Amino acid sequence: MNTCDVIYEGKAKKMYRTEDESIVLVEYLDQVTALNGARKDEMVGKAELNNTISSFIFTWLKKNGIENHFVSKEGKTEQLIKKLEMIPLEIVLRNVAAGSFSKRFAVAQGTVLTRPIIEFYYKADELDDPFINDAHVDYFSIATEGELKSIRQLTLMLNEKLIELFDQIDLTLVDFKIEVGRTSDGKILLADEISPDTCRLWDKTSKQSLDKDVYRKKTGDLLTVYREVTNRLDALKEEN
Amino acid sequence: MNTCDVIYEGKAKKMYRTEDESIVLVEYLDQVTALNGARKDEMVGKAELNNTISSFIFTWLKKNGIENHFVSKEGKTEQLIKKLEMIPLEIVLRNVAAGSFSKRFAVAQGTVLTRPIIEFYYKADELDDPFINDAHVDYFSIATEGELKSIRQLTLMLNEKLIELFDQIDLTLVDFKIEVGRTSDGKILLADEISPDTCRLWDKTSKQSLDKDVYRKKTGDLLTVYREVTNRLDALKEEN
Ligand SMILES: Nc1ncnc2c1ncn2[C@@H]1O[C@H](COP(=O)(O)OP(=O)(O)O)[C@@H](O)[C@H]1O
Ligand SMILES: Nc1ncnc2c1ncn2[C@@H]1O[C@H](COP(=O)(O)OP(=O)(O)O)[C@@H](O)[C@H]1O
Ligand SMILES: [Mg+2]
Ligand SMILES: [Mg+2]
Repeated sequence: MNTCDVIYEGKAKKMYRTEDESIVLVEYLDQVTALNGARKDEMVGKAELNNTISSFIFTWLKKNGIENHFVSKEGKTEQLIKKLEMIPLEIVLRNVAAGSFSKRFAVAQGTVLTRPIIEFYYKADELDDPFINDAHVDYFSIATEGELKSIRQLTLMLNEKLIELFDQIDLTLVDFKIEVGRTSDGKILLADEISPDTCRLWDKTSKQSLDKDVYRKKTGDLLTVYREVTNRLDALKEEN
Repeated sequence: MNTCDVIYEGKAKKMYRTEDESIVLVEYLDQVTALNGARKDEMVGKAELNNTISSFIFTWLKKNGIENHFVSKEGKTEQLIKKLEMIPLEIVLRNVAAGSFSKRFAVAQGTVLTRPIIEFYYKADELDDPFINDAHVDYFSIATEGELKSIRQLTLMLNEKLIELFDQIDLTLVDFKIEVGRTSDGKILLADEISPDTCRLWDKTSKQSLDKDVYRKKTGDLLTVYREVTNRLDALKEEN
């Protein structure tokens, strides 16, 4: 891969042009960040784990009725994806109170929410990804009202499917963050990644975090828990 | 007034029971706060000014098609209002970028918004009145979907009327905060107060703030600018 082929270098992934204009090569990086990039560490092996997990989940979702940008896994740390016009939103869905939600509303971590709560954050590093409402989405021309409706529907459907998947490997899906983009014909498509970087996953028995929170809160070894998630998904593959 | 009659003592007003169960006496206080009460000062004369301004505006709104809780002005610092079941929301409407909006989105103070933006904050002192979305309103049973729709309609209509009023006294209505409550038959009614404590008002010529920002930012004398607003409204009364 030539460095001149790099389209974008983010906090967790690098994107490369391919011969096909509509396809991008994503390289997962051995890097972990918190606090919107303010804390940053190298973690040799993370790229491979997240690429494996994300590829597995996107493939499983396709088979289970949730279209997404994934094309194929290429090598240990790379995958091909459909290039989309990204919508600068971090779409968060919460099933259980944790993180900023717990803090903001003084709801104890672990409180099961009676229904999923969706929140939009404006993906803009220079603004620190502020929490926004539908009026802001409209005002800053982030997405149309119709697109927001599709995004909410997609996020709720995805939640049901992901709960089903993680349930099979004894994990509670506490919350997750997704990104979506527009296809050339204007459809909303699930994009970016789904991994322990972007989901809070709690072991059903021990209630322990098997996700980036071990790094954020310094409560465990990131590679160990990501490997655990990978192994459980692998076992699942063999079962089927 | 007996102290045993006090129902509630807030940051700017005291509420007293009256013989009529459905009516409350509000006493405006010579007190000003910022940062959700963390900064607090006595300002002798503020109560009278805000009671005068708020009474004038609520009366004007009634005449101009916006129902509200106001019953009558009683003495210098008091007014009678209809007692409502309050909805714990601070409803903010913005016509021009200022304050937290400017900061959060890096939009220069004074930028005219192409359309009004409405924001909801959860009125909960212990949480510091967090900014929330419709899903939170629903989740915390703050208001129903139908009520939110009425609240948005009311807020937009009120905005048009208030712009019209302030225009007549050479003030730009930059933004405002209102509170609403439920009547016994479940209707949403405009409540609380409308004053330079709750509106950003900029002189159309000098662009100077004639509102609580002079206290928040320590850029002027609060009583002087509140008196200026009172005088301009007085002149308007005499014109009509
Ligand atoms: N299908 C796609 N098409 C184009 N861009 C995408 C697609 N999926 C994800 N992206 C973008 O690629 C970048 C992924 O790299 P990442 O390291 O996660 O970046 P960031 O630090 O901005 O989150 C993000 O900016 C993400 O929005
Ligand atoms: N019509 C009404 N009926 C009942 N309560 C009201 C009405 N209008 C306003 N209130 C409430 O009365 C209180 C007014 O006092 P204030 O000093 O503004 O309190 P706070 O510090 O809570 O803002 C607020 O709690 C407000 O929600
Ligand atoms: Mg990212
Ligand atoms: Mg108040």
